[in-house]
Amino acid sequence: MTHSHNVPARQVRSAEEAARVMRAAGLRVTASRRAVAQALFAASDPLTAEQIAEATGGDPASVYRNLDTLEGLGLVRHVHLGHGPGCYSPTAQDEREYLVCEECGDRLALPAARLDAVRAVVRDEFGFEARFSHFPIVGRCARCAAASPG
Amino acid sequence: MTHSHNVPARQVRSAEEAARVMRAAGLRVTASRRAVAQALFAASDPLTAEQIAEATGGDPASVYRNLDTLEGLGLVRHVHLGHGPGCYSPTAQDEREYLVCEECGDRLALPAARLDAVRAVVRDEFGFEARFSHFPIVGRCARCAAASPG
Repeated sequence: MTHSHNVPARQVRSAEEAARVMRAAGLRVTASRRAVAQALFAASDPLTAEQIAEATGGDPASVYRNLDTLEGLGLVRHVHLGHGPGCYSPTAQDEREYLVCEECGDRLALPAARLDAVRAVVRDEFGFEARFSHFPIVGRCARCAAASPG
Repeated sequence: MTHSHNVPARQVRSAEEAARVMRAAGLRVTASRRAVAQALFAASDPLTAEQIAEATGGDPASVYRNLDTLEGLGLVRHVHLGHGPGCYSPTAQDEREYLVCEECGDRLALPAARLDAVRAVVRDEFGFEARFSHFPIVGRCARCAAASPG
């Protein structure tokens, strides 16, 4: 899982389109590659490889290899929503950025533009171009912060 | 490595003070626990368990167990500076928060107060109390952003 966010994104909207990209890249559209793509496009949230393996009946090692292939083609990306394994989603949903609550695990998935004000402060103060699609903003949600302030 | 940032911090400034806290908690100050604490207090940057194992001659599994013990006492914390294993530092240095460049790996370690303006925007927009000591702000540093804009 190393290329990840350095491969140009492909705005693909379905598992069928993803299959066409695989073929155009000279790759075979195996049953397991197709199943992984279908699971990702069917989900409304990013999935772990384990969740995909459960949904498709594939073994985790092969799911990881397929995810790696799909990431290499720019069809799939992963995000780290805290400890533990990354979560995968189709690149077409990649404009989402995340805030994650460390206490209750709640996540806020937002269009990237919603975080532009945060990005502007980071840029002004540190000359740094922040991105919260691969590694989210982590902290405490309003409810947990209210429950135990400080 | 699960308690991590939920255990109250202990402002301890040396491996000797850490040893006193271990004893007060009814734990033995074994040679390997002492060596791990010494490596952490001697370092200016957070260290991976592997780096500590190298520095102390301990085996990684025992270093992880010792780090877990020290984290449980609030003496040590870890930060995730990108992919790969966490990096450990004494809690006394915990006021540092981090920005990490995804491209060159460069990191900015800052006193927490330096990120208050960023935190204020996140709070105003999302009611979220952000903290960048456990999971940093990830993006591209000024140099990498200038080298390949967009």
